Amino acid sequence: MASRKPRTSNLELKNHLYPVIMAGGSGTRFWPLSRQLFPKQLLRIMGDETLIQQTMRRVVCASSPNRVMISTNPAQAESIRVQLSEWKDALADNFILEPEGRNTAPAIALVALELVRRDPDAIMVVVPADHIITGQRAFDAAVSLAATLATQDYLVTFGIKPIRPETGYGYIRPNRKVTLRKQGLLKGHPVSRFVEKPNAAKAAQYLKAGDYYWNSGMFVWRAATILDEIKRHQPTLFGGIDRIGQLLQSGAPRKAIDDAYCALKPVSIDTGVMERSKKAAIVPVSFQWSDVGSWGSLDEVASKDKAGNVVIGRVIDLGSRRSIVYGDRRLVATIGLTDMVVVDTPDATLVCPKSRAQEVKQLVEVLKTQNAPEYLEHMTVHRPWGSYTILEEGPGYKVKRVTVKPGGRLSLQMHHRRSEHWVVIAGTARVTRGDEVFDLNVGHSTEIPLETRHRLENPGEETLHIIEVQNGPYLGEDDIVRFQDDYGRGVKREA
Amino acid sequence: MASRKPRTSNLELKNHLYPVIMAGGSGTRFWPLSRQLFPKQLLRIMGDETLIQQTMRRVVCASSPNRVMISTNPAQAESIRVQLSEWKDALADNFILEPEGRNTAPAIALVALELVRRDPDAIMVVVPADHIITGQRAFDAAVSLAATLATQDYLVTFGIKPIRPETGYGYIRPNRKVTLRKQGLLKGHPVSRFVEKPNAAKAAQYLKAGDYYWNSGMFVWRAATILDEIKRHQPTLFGGIDRIGQLLQSGAPRKAIDDAYCALKPVSIDTGVMERSKKAAIVPVSFQWSDVGSWGSLDEVASKDKAGNVVIGRVIDLGSRRSIVYGDRRLVATIGLTDMVVVDTPDATLVCPKSRAQEVKQLVEVLKTQNAPEYLEHMTVHRPWGSYTILEEGPGYKVKRVTVKPGGRLSLQMHHRRSEHWVVIAGTARVTRGDEVFDLNVGHSTEIPLETRHRLENPGEETLHIIEVQNGPYLGEDDIVRFQDDYGRGVKREA
Repeated sequence: MASRKPRTSNLELKNHLYPVIMAGGSGTRFWPLSRQLFPKQLLRIMGDETLIQQTMRRVVCASSPNRVMISTNPAQAESIRVQLSEWKDALADNFILEPEGRNTAPAIALVALELVRRDPDAIMVVVPADHIITGQRAFDAAVSLAATLATQDYLVTFGIKPIRPETGYGYIRPNRKVTLRKQGLLKGHPVSRFVEKPNAAKAAQYLKAGDYYWNSGMFVWRAATILDEIKRHQPTLFGGIDRIGQLLQSGAPRKAIDDAYCALKPVSIDTGVMERSKKAAIVPVSFQWSDVGSWGSLDEVASKDKAGNVVIGRVIDLGSRRSIVYGDRRLVATIGLTDMVVVDTPDATLVCPKSRAQEVKQLVEVLKTQNAPEYLEHMTVHRPWGSYTILEEGPGYKVKRVTVKPGGRLSLQMHHRRSEHWVVIAGTARVTRGDEVFDLNVGHSTEIPLETRHRLENPGEETLHIIEVQNGPYLGEDDIVRFQDDYGRGVKREA
Repeated sequence: MASRKPRTSNLELKNHLYPVIMAGGSGTRFWPLSRQLFPKQLLRIMGDETLIQQTMRRVVCASSPNRVMISTNPAQAESIRVQLSEWKDALADNFILEPEGRNTAPAIALVALELVRRDPDAIMVVVPADHIITGQRAFDAAVSLAATLATQDYLVTFGIKPIRPETGYGYIRPNRKVTLRKQGLLKGHPVSRFVEKPNAAKAAQYLKAGDYYWNSGMFVWRAATILDEIKRHQPTLFGGIDRIGQLLQSGAPRKAIDDAYCALKPVSIDTGVMERSKKAAIVPVSFQWSDVGSWGSLDEVASKDKAGNVVIGRVIDLGSRRSIVYGDRRLVATIGLTDMVVVDTPDATLVCPKSRAQEVKQLVEVLKTQNAPEYLEHMTVHRPWGSYTILEEGPGYKVKRVTVKPGGRLSLQMHHRRSEHWVVIAGTARVTRGDEVFDLNVGHSTEIPLETRHRLENPGEETLHIIEVQNGPYLGEDDIVRFQDDYGRGVKREA
């Protein structure tokens, strides 16, 4: 399958480029802004768009939206579809869902499997959904050079010039004696050495040496090549993926496919394949890059005030320096902080020194073991029809603000153990209650008794906002019987 | 009027003791837990009771509830009455309200004026409402000795043994050559010297010298004596107070009396009278005392974990030391803090080093100039009938949780510019709506159109909780027309 000569011109090549956005991360290190079900990629960390929106916009430049693949999991897919709704139609069939996370190699193999089916000459441009990159031209140039190398069956990684002795990344040393290809100032080299996350002394040494690069987690390769290399270096994984391919082709039930995937052993593409492959190549790139791996790394990308503070939201400060203060709707008041991180969200507040921001990951582990809801999701939860925000929960009641997009409607549903009260605060609601259907305008309300079929719908052109008060002995989201749903969610057949 | 011999026995003397609780403070230094309209004295800082409740319980020991006077202002009187409802009847006529704060001398003069009217031999025991004192017996003993000295026309102050070189207090040096009176280990001395808040070097010197005491702001004197001494040292103030006495006696309208009070010049009893008077005496006391003057001072009174942290509320911490973390309903997560203060409330969060906790006062000044609502009151506001909590405010709507005590009822009222929706989430509501009166049980709701007379009432034995959703172009608390009110609040006569 391998050939060392470009088989396609640049123009043709572009038609075979498939950006693959890796969007399965949990982003625990940006807690409390990120949550298990609302990871970093969905956040507006810098600029007006979220990280995954920025990533999408970046990769479509070199390709076409309908060739962008999204690798994620079922829990996040809905939120991602909402955020990428600008490209809704193009992406419709391009979500590849892992039923459970198995690290990068199985996820990439699954996408590669689908891509060789669609296009045997497919070149994958694998990019994480939650990195910040500045310099579209430099990015495009790197992709272009790497893609050419990919046609020669190289597994290409982008090397980032280190700016500090970081111990959290892997390092790569190019073999500068061999230049595989040159395009402008950019060069591709074979990889001479991979180094796993080094200790502080080693990291300082690599920084000083100047011929080591950070492993950015971005890769360019032919889908066929990476499958070949997975087969060579991870034969068990390849066997599992091959079997999944057969199941898919034979139209096996979803459950069988999911089970086969869940049986795979987790392995990362770096240690499992890249570090073992003879085909590894590196393109040292010139664009600015940050994986915004923790609150402290906001320093690298966000704009600062004169005292070096990154301040977002409604903040009143007296004399703080070099601190990160992130507020949401509430007031945050700070006095005399130095190198601190303060993050305030509707249900949780974090305070820690920048130097210990990495430990947020451990903190979230503690929350998880305590089954604290704050690790899982936000007070605001996005749904295909809009969103809801929990304003307060107490014994026997829950108060939500519910937002429904124009034309959106919730499923036709019923609850066994709670009644609901809806007050329209903006827009017009079309209410189905038992056999009645009626419109409710601003300032009006209705009561949905328990065990009554009901539906909320926005027939208007503006967003509908209602306040919902739930009453009952049990208020879990799972007390719901769905009769009809526009978004294909579990529906119970009527008797 | 003066006489240097006790004129009354101890038993008789007790019948002339009038504790005066000074409860007009704004407590800005405990923001965001304290607010302009909810100062420190109303907070549960240590123990199950609020500071003013503890103060009340402390002073009634040596006196009787119906002789306790409360000096405060109209904005706080309601909250104080609610907190002291255990002594409701005894205190009914004992609130002396300053229309506006004029520092301690005018406030004390006003109470003294009332007390000489009630009892020419009245002895005032002036105590701030928001101090923490441990040792009831030692307190009672100090009051007893001081009261005896008061009958000899001394102006007695309690001296606190300094435990640190504090620069925030005044210092007093007793003239130990003269012992005015001795009772057990307690002694009373004439004051040899008052020192205003010293600098750090002086404070350290006084601490080392051992014969200086902190001025605690607690005083014992005959009401007649303090009026005499005010007349001597603050003749203008005395003239003003005297005129107010005449206005009161002649039954002048409230407005004239308020205007006369507001015309007084602010002056403190310490600098205006005590430091000038030849009758000043000091009783060095042995009880534990803290004025909890800032978040940092919680250290002196609150219990700590092994790492020296004071932790209140739902807090998850990794490795903090000597910090104060105060959470409310939301989760507060802290990592590696040292000597920090974190205070989280429903609408505002404060983060600062302990060493700068005094600057909270300045912060609140900034909030005030910005007219930020967070300086004024909490999301939860107490009313004579119960309380309400704002859950969310947005354009054209406001969501509140309203709590009504058993037997409590809101005024019969009407709004011009908003409709209201009530959903009962606990208890039973009796609703007046236009000409109807009906009961609403848990899980039921009603709609109050604008310009409709309505009333909410709790006819039951358990507390009533409702969710209220307001809708309209203007939602200010001042859009209210009251037709009848159980609590004597402004009522409009019906046409």
